[in-house]
Amino acid sequence: MSEKNFKLTIEYDGTGFFGWQTQAKGRTVQGELEEALSSIVSGEKITLTGSGRTDSGVHALNQVAHVKLDTRLHPEQLMKALNAMTGDDLLVKDCRRVSSEFHARFSAKKRTYQYRITTRYSPFTRFTRWWLKYPVKFEQLNLCARMIIGEHDFSSFCKANADVPHKRCHIFESHWVKEGDNYAYTIAANRFLQHMVRYLVGTMVEVARGRMSPDDFEIFLRGKHEKLAVFRAPAKGLFLTDVYYGE
Amino acid sequence: MSEKNFKLTIEYDGTGFFGWQTQAKGRTVQGELEEALSSIVSGEKITLTGSGRTDSGVHALNQVAHVKLDTRLHPEQLMKALNAMTGDDLLVKDCRRVSSEFHARFSAKKRTYQYRITTRYSPFTRFTRWWLKYPVKFEQLNLCARMIIGEHDFSSFCKANADVPHKRCHIFESHWVKEGDNYAYTIAANRFLQHMVRYLVGTMVEVARGRMSPDDFEIFLRGKHEKLAVFRAPAKGLFLTDVYYGE
Repeated sequence: MSEKNFKLTIEYDGTGFFGWQTQAKGRTVQGELEEALSSIVSGEKITLTGSGRTDSGVHALNQVAHVKLDTRLHPEQLMKALNAMTGDDLLVKDCRRVSSEFHARFSAKKRTYQYRITTRYSPFTRFTRWWLKYPVKFEQLNLCARMIIGEHDFSSFCKANADVPHKRCHIFESHWVKEGDNYAYTIAANRFLQHMVRYLVGTMVEVARGRMSPDDFEIFLRGKHEKLAVFRAPAKGLFLTDVYYGE
Repeated sequence: MSEKNFKLTIEYDGTGFFGWQTQAKGRTVQGELEEALSSIVSGEKITLTGSGRTDSGVHALNQVAHVKLDTRLHPEQLMKALNAMTGDDLLVKDCRRVSSEFHARFSAKKRTYQYRITTRYSPFTRFTRWWLKYPVKFEQLNLCARMIIGEHDFSSFCKANADVPHKRCHIFESHWVKEGDNYAYTIAANRFLQHMVRYLVGTMVEVARGRMSPDDFEIFLRGKHEKLAVFRAPAKGLFLTDVYYGE
């Protein structure tokens, strides 16, 4: 037996999935791919390891995962088989052999996310943008976005009981762009805590609509926030856009 | 009783509709709006008149319709009520009072459609672009597109038994643009025959993939085509983009 390590790049519309991670009930991206992989290698149970989880409803343009398989299939054949066996809201865009050391999660050096907002409702973006029914000040969004660049403790911006050794993340990039009624936020970091981007965006929007001050935002970043609450933006506006391995 | 004439502008994702026109079974855009209008004006049967029908699965960015109502509601209130009572894949974007002579279909001077194609599959455009699994020559698409500008008989490019007095249409605009793997066709005309844009696009693509020559395309336009067949592109790539009334 000679196991080969495959790296998969996956695009998915998260609307019809209960997130990335395999679970007992409900369709998940990892679950659907593992099931297909298992059929391909004669029914053995297969584990696919992603670069990280995405919540229910969150999308991905280039999620990365690895899987070790004892197969004679070429990467191109494996990709075609997977695409034929999974839903049309999921696309394996790339499949290649990598060294046995490659680990989709632990080898990752940088991840980028994008969050999309609109102030004009459209039926065509109802599953891919957060629709704000109130105006927001673009400059205030960017004022907050700039504050988090560098290394900070994001304890205020993650799930309270997150089981991680520490909550420091290094933010390489953080900015908003505006195009008509559409706003897009890009954030790149070495790591992300659970719900972190959604808490950051939700709270930035509170500032940009005038219900919180940029100073309040900074207080969260310093960790002192006895009397304030952060806000979490909905899942549907969030896209995992890229994972970098420094190849 | 004093009936007022309202002009509605409507955006819809056609994926979940059996087209525009009210029918006995299945959800339609006209049917869903008429039902809501009927509830608003105390149960009377209401007829909403569109600028034209769209097929099942065809989308609209700015479909126009008119409706005569005996109501005290202001246009803005009527619009809000309609949006509250219809699905989130349908948006009434504008509602205004117009003169009693305004007729969404007969007053229209020009209509524009867009057809979207991609040569790279994406889960995010699976309901809004025709995915071509083969390469196409962009210049050939535009060569065909230019041929139809002006007044022509489109008998070759419509449903065979279409019940219309004549099949001459005046094409004001007809061109393709390309952005990466995405192609978009824009066509503006005084009128369109049933399935006309889909037949035009389907046949242009046959030329652009090399299975038919530009001369064959021209033969269709001249109406002589005993040995050739036109092709119909799928509904999901088609958008009714605008209707002009020369206001």
